[in-house]
Amino acid sequence: MCEAGRLLTIQSHVATGYVGNRSATFPAQLLGWDVDAVNTVQFSNHTGYGRWGGLRFDEHHLTDVFDGLARNGLLTQNRVVTGYTPSPEALSAVERLIARLRATNPALVYLLDPVMGDMDRGMYVNPNVLPIYRRMLHLSTIICPNQFEAQLLAGQEITSLASLRAVQEKLHVEYRVPHVVITSLALPPDDLARLGASATMPDGQEAMVLVGSTWDHGLQSWFLQFPCLGEYFSGVGDLFAALVLARFATHLDDLPEPARAAHALEPAASADECTLPIARAVMLAVAALQHVLVRTRATMVEQGARLQLDPFRPVTQLDADERVRVMRLRELRIVQSASEILRPRVLYRPQWARS
Amino acid sequence: MCEAGRLLTIQSHVATGYVGNRSATFPAQLLGWDVDAVNTVQFSNHTGYGRWGGLRFDEHHLTDVFDGLARNGLLTQNRVVTGYTPSPEALSAVERLIARLRATNPALVYLLDPVMGDMDRGMYVNPNVLPIYRRMLHLSTIICPNQFEAQLLAGQEITSLASLRAVQEKLHVEYRVPHVVITSLALPPDDLARLGASATMPDGQEAMVLVGSTWDHGLQSWFLQFPCLGEYFSGVGDLFAALVLARFATHLDDLPEPARAAHALEPAASADECTLPIARAVMLAVAALQHVLVRTRATMVEQGARLQLDPFRPVTQLDADERVRVMRLRELRIVQSASEILRPRVLYRPQWARS
Repeated sequence: MCEAGRLLTIQSHVATGYVGNRSATFPAQLLGWDVDAVNTVQFSNHTGYGRWGGLRFDEHHLTDVFDGLARNGLLTQNRVVTGYTPSPEALSAVERLIARLRATNPALVYLLDPVMGDMDRGMYVNPNVLPIYRRMLHLSTIICPNQFEAQLLAGQEITSLASLRAVQEKLHVEYRVPHVVITSLALPPDDLARLGASATMPDGQEAMVLVGSTWDHGLQSWFLQFPCLGEYFSGVGDLFAALVLARFATHLDDLPEPARAAHALEPAASADECTLPIARAVMLAVAALQHVLVRTRATMVEQGARLQLDPFRPVTQLDADERVRVMRLRELRIVQSASEILRPRVLYRPQWARS
Repeated sequence: MCEAGRLLTIQSHVATGYVGNRSATFPAQLLGWDVDAVNTVQFSNHTGYGRWGGLRFDEHHLTDVFDGLARNGLLTQNRVVTGYTPSPEALSAVERLIARLRATNPALVYLLDPVMGDMDRGMYVNPNVLPIYRRMLHLSTIICPNQFEAQLLAGQEITSLASLRAVQEKLHVEYRVPHVVITSLALPPDDLARLGASATMPDGQEAMVLVGSTWDHGLQSWFLQFPCLGEYFSGVGDLFAALVLARFATHLDDLPEPARAAHALEPAASADECTLPIARAVMLAVAALQHVLVRTRATMVEQGARLQLDPFRPVTQLDADERVRVMRLRELRIVQSASEILRPRVLYRPQWARS
């Protein structure tokens, strides 16, 4: 049995601040989802602060919670999102749960965010999660890797349009992922131009390029570009993933009522615009995210000035106490952005990839 | 240092359903509070289901999380709410935290819900929590006991208006609690009448009588009565406590912007109406709660009919599987009631006690 409007998120919990489940839960609830949440850790604050209290939960505790749900017939969620998971053992417990959900509900929409690292820092989790994530790909509906994670999953670097295509095809065909959203992509300028994108926004700001694809008798590829704002903040990927999952809809009936309005009000703006359901969900997620980031950045700059702290200073240049204070300034202003999460103004729209 | 608009809640976490922090967090966030949450347990579902997975966290884990916050200067919340706490040891850890918060911020608003039992079931926690709760009373700003808990704390039964007054005075004067809200009170009809209240609503429905008091050079006592709707549902007290704390304001500036509108729009309706800040907060909390309960009850009846389950059957008459299904039907519809939580229609107003 499956309940419409019920979404499960399995991520970290921090007592204060917005990463993991703390970043995902409120926005999805705001959009009308009955959000179920299993916490994989309970920390005082996220680990970017440098110091924290609390603990990672082991696979026995997670399995015990999952089994409690199963025994009571409470695995009825029709959407699931998973993100950072603290150990290969815990991830295996999550894998078993998703397999169980998928088996009982073929229509399950599962968004897998395969959190492993990024281009700047490389792998920041136990490398033994990689084969587990690869195994989990066939259970997923949507995946949201960054370029680094997409490369790891496909076992192939992305250095050109051709190698991007190869990675997309591998994820769709070999690993049977319906929708792939590569959340940030660096390509040589010529390759970006052939895609239809560019490294800068029309006003000269540095651009992020997100590339999405869906497999439907062949590769359907699109991209979205928007100003780069998120580099200082933690929890952005978790918020993005939750918003995409909460917004994704083949039919408006798939969504709780509060999530419908923004969809209904946003007709395609041009013939080049990609109107695939996943592209629409990403468009609305990015729009909300940009509001949150603009507000977070403004508050951070204002409070930093008041506290005589430079919020942009690299963490490596800060002593332990300064680092904590700077990380605090960078916490996402999610609660303050409730109305924009619900009704975001769309400035950036997804375009079909040109080649 | 203290941050306006930051509220800490220390309660249970369930993966699915609405009790403890799951009942408290979303409504307070909706009202604009940056909610910090420490979970004292992680269960699959609340224990009323009869079966569950997960664990109670011990005092070491809780202390570790609290210490992480303290070490990082993150105990800046200016509001705190605590509810059910699983053991005397865990409650002692909470007590030490509140003492620390109170010492650094004399303006802290702390709502203590001394969850111990009720008139029907008696004491349902370890009795060793009682002396700890008594010690914690002088740290509190507001307490929300039911009649059973108020009696335990004061060490005196409430059987008449005179003994009610004695209990209120004891809590205010001996235990130095500024605001006492006794959430349900059964008194002989004559005593209710002398208070100004009655056991039934004007339309004949059974009434709940809530009695509040504030000590300000003497006892200022008031009451609120409203239809009895909550008896089948779990998490109602946790939702009520969070709403009272999120709504309580001596000045409108004390509240985040989303919480202000309902206050500003509700002038006193009569000369008998009590306009103490705590009575206004309770009025708005009860109004929101009634919306949630009416919606929950309607959904429960409708789904019960569809599933051929009687949602009102006492738990003791159900086998284990039926019990789980009935408890599921009774989960609060909090997410679905977002707009009424934000802007509740006020039907029941607090009146000054007559004698």
